[in-house]
Amino acid sequence: MATLTIPEAIPSPAEDCEQLRKAFQGWGTNEALIISILAHRNAAQRRAIRETYAQIYGEELLKSLDDEISGDFERAVILWTLDPAERDAALANEAVRKWRSSDRVLIEIACARSSAELFAARQAYHARFKRSIEEDVAAHTTGDIRKLLVLLVSSYRYEGAEVNMRLAKSEAKILHEKISDKAYNDEELIRILATRSKAQLVATLNLYNNEFGNSINKDLKSDPKDEYLAALRAVIRCICCPEKYFEKVIRMAIAGLGTDENALTRVITTRAEVDLKVVKEVYHKRNSVPLERAVAGDTSGDYERMLLALLGHEN
Amino acid sequence: MATLTIPEAIPSPAEDCEQLRKAFQGWGTNEALIISILAHRNAAQRRAIRETYAQIYGEELLKSLDDEISGDFERAVILWTLDPAERDAALANEAVRKWRSSDRVLIEIACARSSAELFAARQAYHARFKRSIEEDVAAHTTGDIRKLLVLLVSSYRYEGAEVNMRLAKSEAKILHEKISDKAYNDEELIRILATRSKAQLVATLNLYNNEFGNSINKDLKSDPKDEYLAALRAVIRCICCPEKYFEKVIRMAIAGLGTDENALTRVITTRAEVDLKVVKEVYHKRNSVPLERAVAGDTSGDYERMLLALLGHEN
Repeated sequence: MATLTIPEAIPSPAEDCEQLRKAFQGWGTNEALIISILAHRNAAQRRAIRETYAQIYGEELLKSLDDEISGDFERAVILWTLDPAERDAALANEAVRKWRSSDRVLIEIACARSSAELFAARQAYHARFKRSIEEDVAAHTTGDIRKLLVLLVSSYRYEGAEVNMRLAKSEAKILHEKISDKAYNDEELIRILATRSKAQLVATLNLYNNEFGNSINKDLKSDPKDEYLAALRAVIRCICCPEKYFEKVIRMAIAGLGTDENALTRVITTRAEVDLKVVKEVYHKRNSVPLERAVAGDTSGDYERMLLALLGHEN
Repeated sequence: MATLTIPEAIPSPAEDCEQLRKAFQGWGTNEALIISILAHRNAAQRRAIRETYAQIYGEELLKSLDDEISGDFERAVILWTLDPAERDAALANEAVRKWRSSDRVLIEIACARSSAELFAARQAYHARFKRSIEEDVAAHTTGDIRKLLVLLVSSYRYEGAEVNMRLAKSEAKILHEKISDKAYNDEELIRILATRSKAQLVATLNLYNNEFGNSINKDLKSDPKDEYLAALRAVIRCICCPEKYFEKVIRMAIAGLGTDENALTRVITTRAEVDLKVVKEVYHKRNSVPLERAVAGDTSGDYERMLLALLGHEN
C-alpha cells in the first residue's frame, strides 16, 4: 500500500543521472526536475541512479544534492534517496546523538520494521558509523528507557504467524499484574514486549483487553506526562497498528501553530514505499481532511512539492 | 587453523551418499565408513551431501544417522554434520530447555562467533524452532544471568579494528569502579561487555590490567563459586582468548574421573573447522600431553575414532 508512483516508461539510470546533472548546473537549481525524477523511483532504481551517478561524475549524488539544495527540502530529498536500511541507520544515529526521551525514531525502527529490515539497518549502521546501533543507544540513553531501547533495537523477532494461546494468556496476566503494580520498568514486562513475535504479542494484548476490560495502552496512561510510559505505548502501537501510529505522528506534526517538519519528513519518506496509502486513509477518516491538503496547508515551496509527490498527489 | 582434513580428490556428493547408504545397510552399521566420509568434508560439502541424500533416498540424512547410530558417537556425528548455524541453533535450544546456570553454550555462541555467525544462528533458530533465541533465553533464565545473556545473544557487535582509546580508558575505569563496589550486575558493566566491539573490549581490558594492576578476570574471582561471576569470566575469555577458553573447557571435560562427553563433543565439533589446531597447541603446551592422546585415553570405540578424525589425527 505504497503511495510512490513510478512512470510506466522509466529512463535508464544514465538518463536519469544526466537530467539530475542538468538540474544542478547553470544558474540556480531546477528543483522541479529533481523531484520529478527522484520522487518517482523505487529503492532499487534510486540505488542504481546513485551508483551510476558516482561512476559517471566521480561524485556522490548525495553530495551534489547537499551542495545544491537546502533546508527541509534537502532533508526530505536526501532521506528519501537513501536506501531504506541506510536511512534507518542515519535516523537512528541522529536520534542517539541528539537524544531526547520524547524521540520515537528508535522505537519506529525497532518495532515498525520487519525483523530483516531492522537487521539490515544494523548492518548499515556498522558500515556507516563503525559502531553498533545498540552500543550507541546504550551509551547515549539512561534509565528505564535505555533498558527498553537496547533490547528493542537488538531484537530479531520471529515472524511466523504461529500463536501460543496458553502463553498469550499467561503473559497477558503478567503484563496486567506488573501494570497494576505500576512496575512499568519490570524486566518481565520489557522482555515480553521486546522479544515476542508480533503475532504472539497481538494475541497477548487482545487477551489483555478481553480479560481485564481495558486496552493495555489505556492502562499505560496513568501519568500522561511520563515519557517512559509514552515510549511503551508507542512500542505497542508500532507493533499492533503501525498505520494508526503513523497517522498520529503526522497529525501531531501538523497540528497547532508551527509544523514538526522532521517528523513529517520522516514518516513520509520512511512509509511512502510501505503503507503510506493506508496511513493517508486513516488520516482522512480521522481528520475529515485529505492528508495531501493538510500537508499543503502546513508546508510550502519545493519541500511541499516533494512531500506531495511522495504522497502520490498528481498535479 | 582448522584440524579438519579433506582428501585431495573428493567424491561427488552422490558418490558419498551411495557410500553412506551402504554403511547403513545390511547387518550392522559400518561406522568406520561413516567417519571416513563425514569427518572429512567441510560444511559446504556436508550440506551438499545432505541435500543430495534427501533427493536420492527421500529421507533426511540426519534421520538415517539417528536410526543407525547412538550414544555419544551419534551426538558427535549429528552435531558435526549440521551446518554451523543450525548446530549453534540446536545447541542453544538444548541449553535453554535444560537450563543450568553453569552452562556456557549460550556464551560461546554469543561471544566466540563472528557477528555474522551469531546472526546466522539466530536465523537458523527461527527456521527450526519458530521462536527467537532471545525470547527463549529470556523465558528460561532468571536474574542477573538473564540480563547478561539476553543482551549477549542479541548483540551484533561492530567488527572493525578501530579502537577509541579515550573510550577504552573511561570504560576501563567504569568497569573497575563497578567491580570494586562488587556491583557485578550493574547495567554499565553488562552494557560494555555486551555491546562493544571485540577490538574495543580488548583495548579496554588491557588498559584495565595496566591501570589497576590485575586482570579483570582476577578481580572477577572474588567468589569462585558464584556462577554469575564465572559467566562473566567466560564472556571475557571467549572474546579475548577463545583458544585458551576452549582449551580449558576440554581440559575440564577430560580431567578427573569420568568425562564430560557433551562438552568435549561440543568444542571439537564447533571448532574443528575454526581454530582447533590452535586449541590443540595450547592444550599440548598447558598439559604436556597431545590432545589426541588425552582424548584417546578418555573415550573409546566409534566415538573416540570420530573425535580423533575431527582432531586431524591420521591413523
